[in-house]
Amino acid sequence: MSALLEGLRAALGDAGLLAGGDLSAYEQDWRKRYAGRALAVARPASTDEVATVLRLCHAHRVAVVPQGGNTGLVGGSTPDDSGRQLVLSLSRMKRVRGIDVANASLTAEAGCVLADVQAAAAGAGLLFPLSLAAEGSCTLGGNLASNAGGTQVLRYGNARELCLGLEVVTASGDVWHGLSGLRKDNTGYDLRDLFIGSEGTLGVITAATMKLYPQPRERLTALAACTSMDDAVALLGLARERAGDALTGFEVMSAAALALVARELPQLHQPLGAAPWTVLLELSDAESAEHARSVFEGLLEAAFERGAVQDAAIAQNLQQAKAFWHLRESIPLAQAQAGLNIKHDIALPVSAIPDFVTEMDAALTAYLPGIEVINFGHLGDGNLHYNVQAPASVAASEFLAAHEAPINTKVYDAVQQRGGSISAEHGIGRLKREELGQRKDPTALALMRAIKRALDPLDLLNPSRVL
Amino acid sequence: MSALLEGLRAALGDAGLLAGGDLSAYEQDWRKRYAGRALAVARPASTDEVATVLRLCHAHRVAVVPQGGNTGLVGGSTPDDSGRQLVLSLSRMKRVRGIDVANASLTAEAGCVLADVQAAAAGAGLLFPLSLAAEGSCTLGGNLASNAGGTQVLRYGNARELCLGLEVVTASGDVWHGLSGLRKDNTGYDLRDLFIGSEGTLGVITAATMKLYPQPRERLTALAACTSMDDAVALLGLARERAGDALTGFEVMSAAALALVARELPQLHQPLGAAPWTVLLELSDAESAEHARSVFEGLLEAAFERGAVQDAAIAQNLQQAKAFWHLRESIPLAQAQAGLNIKHDIALPVSAIPDFVTEMDAALTAYLPGIEVINFGHLGDGNLHYNVQAPASVAASEFLAAHEAPINTKVYDAVQQRGGSISAEHGIGRLKREELGQRKDPTALALMRAIKRALDPLDLLNPSRVL
Repeated sequence: MSALLEGLRAALGDAGLLAGGDLSAYEQDWRKRYAGRALAVARPASTDEVATVLRLCHAHRVAVVPQGGNTGLVGGSTPDDSGRQLVLSLSRMKRVRGIDVANASLTAEAGCVLADVQAAAAGAGLLFPLSLAAEGSCTLGGNLASNAGGTQVLRYGNARELCLGLEVVTASGDVWHGLSGLRKDNTGYDLRDLFIGSEGTLGVITAATMKLYPQPRERLTALAACTSMDDAVALLGLARERAGDALTGFEVMSAAALALVARELPQLHQPLGAAPWTVLLELSDAESAEHARSVFEGLLEAAFERGAVQDAAIAQNLQQAKAFWHLRESIPLAQAQAGLNIKHDIALPVSAIPDFVTEMDAALTAYLPGIEVINFGHLGDGNLHYNVQAPASVAASEFLAAHEAPINTKVYDAVQQRGGSISAEHGIGRLKREELGQRKDPTALALMRAIKRALDPLDLLNPSRVL
Repeated sequence: MSALLEGLRAALGDAGLLAGGDLSAYEQDWRKRYAGRALAVARPASTDEVATVLRLCHAHRVAVVPQGGNTGLVGGSTPDDSGRQLVLSLSRMKRVRGIDVANASLTAEAGCVLADVQAAAAGAGLLFPLSLAAEGSCTLGGNLASNAGGTQVLRYGNARELCLGLEVVTASGDVWHGLSGLRKDNTGYDLRDLFIGSEGTLGVITAATMKLYPQPRERLTALAACTSMDDAVALLGLARERAGDALTGFEVMSAAALALVARELPQLHQPLGAAPWTVLLELSDAESAEHARSVFEGLLEAAFERGAVQDAAIAQNLQQAKAFWHLRESIPLAQAQAGLNIKHDIALPVSAIPDFVTEMDAALTAYLPGIEVINFGHLGDGNLHYNVQAPASVAASEFLAAHEAPINTKVYDAVQQRGGSISAEHGIGRLKREELGQRKDPTALALMRAIKRALDPLDLLNPSRVL
């Protein structure tokens, strides 16, 4: 080990290697579920230095845990507690290498903070649409390694769909120069999408070329009250038909979720009365405020006529629009205040959601009367955060200890029956690795293992994550 | 071999195995560049039968060449001339398994003809936007295996971006049940996109779930005359900004290309006078004909003001719109009438195109005075069909024999210098395999070879294609 550390220090300099001292910021995951212990933290400043780190680790057979902003939710970016894994932090590689306005693309290094990428695009008059709660500290490399989703997937896709090209260092320290501003390229296997979402287990992403978009002229937000999930799904179909890709947000919140917000955060104004489901819609218009408003009014009118919507409010100004979004984004906070709960990040075909919700709500209530389902999420993407809270009479910690496993089984069984996913946007990491091994198609698992062996035969890249 | 054929006949029945007789329809590629000889043609009728074929071939160590509509342009779907490769035709697997309107998705088998998939979607009131010249005979499986492009990539992406899930049979005959209607799924490596575009070398796609879209209310087409490629690129930026995703087509045609059409197909009306570059724009509007027209007029007005456009014509009815598209689509026909030529299917960052065109046109004219560049293509995607015809004084066959290789080198060198692609949408197959081996990033090639060995260790799936 000391030979490796000497080699790393010689290659990276003192600023590039943290060995000894308090490394807890790199060893502890964001949710504080996994406390690890690192051999050291390498902080290379260039792609060549990353390649050197990987070559040295390969020679010394030392495992590497790549880390971006360390905001992941599944324990994928921190070391285990053996003290023998090297954390490879990309935090010093944070340069925006270039913006190509005519090609609507941007190239940045993996350690760029997402908000800085957004700002760089805005500075060139363009939009980088990836947006999520952790954007002030998560990094582009981590976003790609975990194929991050967020609030604008409906229109712009997740991180994978925003990426045009990658620069990647392999397990043995070779560099794939795959940065590309091309919209079309049929020269061989899709390596790019294989590295994206592989959570650092197949290679280390050091830079990426991403798509940019025109800034919309106007963003308009509305809330709509629906009597049933079927109505919310019908409203989605209508919105797609009428607004096309101007529809950039379609979020759903259950009555229980908004009641929880009212209880925990009473200072937040709720513009609509209580309804079984409240939908937040956002339109991004390429033309004008007037045009956006007229599309929205036409859409809501049609929805009223079909009985899909019972009540609605269009934000009258930016402040109101922010308040509508704030309501949606406050649900996790209200949940945190109310105590521990069982979280699910599931995806289903949109058509299967009404039936799933009805059946699962009933099954959970039958299982444990008084149980509270806090259901909200990106309905437009078929992605629900179907969270479950203890009955008022039961302490949250006891509830979790006794019921987390059986409730997960119920929820994931129902998801699997309907062809859904047990991880829509957060990934697998360590948290869902066992679940994946039990539930994923066996042929898919065998293919994944074969690819892992082919690209990382010594199992040095983020071992025991995902697979 | 006879044991294999007996096994196949027992599993597939007489309708499922063609051995002996005239197999030339399966042995000859569409461009008639490669005449092969097949051991036999297996025509399984179900996924289970495909799995049986692959298991038997695996046991007997016989190579398999998957084939859809056999309309590929790079020799990827026909056997070599050894007489020892089995053609696996998916043509009997042509069922649309289902359409999920609320989820906007369709599941169909690999042998479904593209036009039938389009028709099934339209029958459900939705749009399946993949569209290309061979749509009357190419198949969904082939479209996915080659990651087909076509005329609507600008808005809807290529085949890869339209696919939600796959069913695939592996080299050893296992079935991956990966059909999925999910928009989000972060449970492991992206196997789907790895099989898409792998040209039958990693597995056999037997079915797919594809995205559907609302039918646009109105389609509107215009022609615009530009003085320079810089102006055409500026017009693209303006169109993106003003029309957003309503912009579904942005094709460019050089003066020489339209002059060739005028010469070879004088019956076709050309609405605009000769201009260095003519752009075809298409808007697909979610609202109304009036709205589409007002967006188009606003866009063209702004383009005139900036001097990006010198003349323009908006189609007044569907017939005119079709005539505009027909003009664009007639260029290959006019070229075919004019005799053999050297074809390129290249992609570049849009920003690099003006410079590339200026430099390459000059370089080719200097190389061989009188040479004619017929340049046209999907400028919105950065994809040019940069074709080269003999000077009037030189016979086409002599021209090709003497100049194809040096001209390819010049064009591909210039493409490579600018980070472009030597195959934007047609793939590699046999035609560009050597070129790929010389020009692709060596690390990428090593990764591709490692993946091929991992998924097809006996090299039985479409061997010697791509790699």
